Amino acid sequence: MINNLAKGIKLLIEGKPIFIYDFDNRENEIDFVIYAKYITPEWIKWMRIYAGGLICFVTDYEVGKILEIDLQTNYLKKLGYNKLIKNPCYGDEPAFSIYVNHINVKTGIRDVDRAYTIKRLYDVIKFIHQGDVSKGKEIFYNEFYTPGHVPILLGRIGKRFGHTELSLILAKIANIVPALVIVEMLGESNEALNIKNVKEIAEKLNTIIIKGEEIVQYYEKYLKHQINNNFLIV
Amino acid sequence: MINNLAKGIKLLIEGKPIFIYDFDNRENEIDFVIYAKYITPEWIKWMRIYAGGLICFVTDYEVGKILEIDLQTNYLKKLGYNKLIKNPCYGDEPAFSIYVNHINVKTGIRDVDRAYTIKRLYDVIKFIHQGDVSKGKEIFYNEFYTPGHVPILLGRIGKRFGHTELSLILAKIANIVPALVIVEMLGESNEALNIKNVKEIAEKLNTIIIKGEEIVQYYEKYLKHQINNNFLIV
Repeated sequence: MINNLAKGIKLLIEGKPIFIYDFDNRENEIDFVIYAKYITPEWIKWMRIYAGGLICFVTDYEVGKILEIDLQTNYLKKLGYNKLIKNPCYGDEPAFSIYVNHINVKTGIRDVDRAYTIKRLYDVIKFIHQGDVSKGKEIFYNEFYTPGHVPILLGRIGKRFGHTELSLILAKIANIVPALVIVEMLGESNEALNIKNVKEIAEKLNTIIIKGEEIVQYYEKYLKHQINNNFLIV
Repeated sequence: MINNLAKGIKLLIEGKPIFIYDFDNRENEIDFVIYAKYITPEWIKWMRIYAGGLICFVTDYEVGKILEIDLQTNYLKKLGYNKLIKNPCYGDEPAFSIYVNHINVKTGIRDVDRAYTIKRLYDVIKFIHQGDVSKGKEIFYNEFYTPGHVPILLGRIGKRFGHTELSLILAKIANIVPALVIVEMLGESNEALNIKNVKEIAEKLNTIIIKGEEIVQYYEKYLKHQINNNFLIV
């Protein structure tokens, strides 16, 4: 199990996509995940044609705090929309913050546009991650506008166990910038794509599926023993 | 030119999709448009695979007022995010309001989920359009939650000339409920899909492309002379 996880982390670091399945009793869904550093218009195109869900940018809630952006639910509460705030059937409070575009893009939705927005968001988070908070904030407030076409998801590791948090845990173990792109796998089905179909896609892309269970179990060990990262690399 | 417009309106009323091209000096983009009354999971699937943009629900700003929802830009101003509010390069203030899901859907993103959310949003707008405001509001506040996966766009006819408003003008001339689904045509390209490629797709779907220019010119006449709708039907 750890070998599978280690493989996934290696792929993530190298800029290859991986797939994450959450839990049988949650969304029961598989997301395509890629490190934001390596996003390209071609990957955005792949995601919208073969994945089909909402292409989201994932970072940590703590990073959101530094950027002074919050969860949409908190904004809506402040604005008095309590009646419209209900939890999805799987229980978790949604991870959505604001939607942004970079000022240099045209309409915001084209593959080249979304890739550019995400690539530059990665830079914002990279500076913050490296400790240069003012540089990160400067880029964010000068170069982005909202509402745009790239939703920012703020993950709360330990409090929530969605694809957002599962991918962030992997980034943490991998010791990379907490900046990922995720999208739900819908494929040719009208429902979420099942694990058998995603396995075929994963094989074609030379990548693997990791289960939420594996990630959470390993993360608990990781926190307890602060296992050396090298241990992971296959 | 009026014949083309009349054909488009007839298709819209019948639940067939049409394509709208905005303007050379604006987004320079073609959107797929369908009357929300006729949305199906199959159409959502078609849109995400062959269109590829953001699947949005369009209604009128006045309807938004009745539902007591506003433009995201206004919310963000209230919350003090003026520094993040900038206009896209084509100038218009974005039409985005809140993103919703219906409480009965699973994850919100699947084709069956988005179709269900949109179909029920259509009911909300239908009741309001028919004058039963309290029924429309009751459904909206009891059955929807935010943040979800279907963005509501509020069109401002006369003040803005995006695909949102152009499709609303058609709905107005067609005398149908102002409730449409629109999505940008990206296709196989990394840029927006060009008119030649969309023409081929339109032919396969037995439908047509209407230009923003035609819509605006006709709408001006329509307002001046209150032309009888029958005049339009080919």
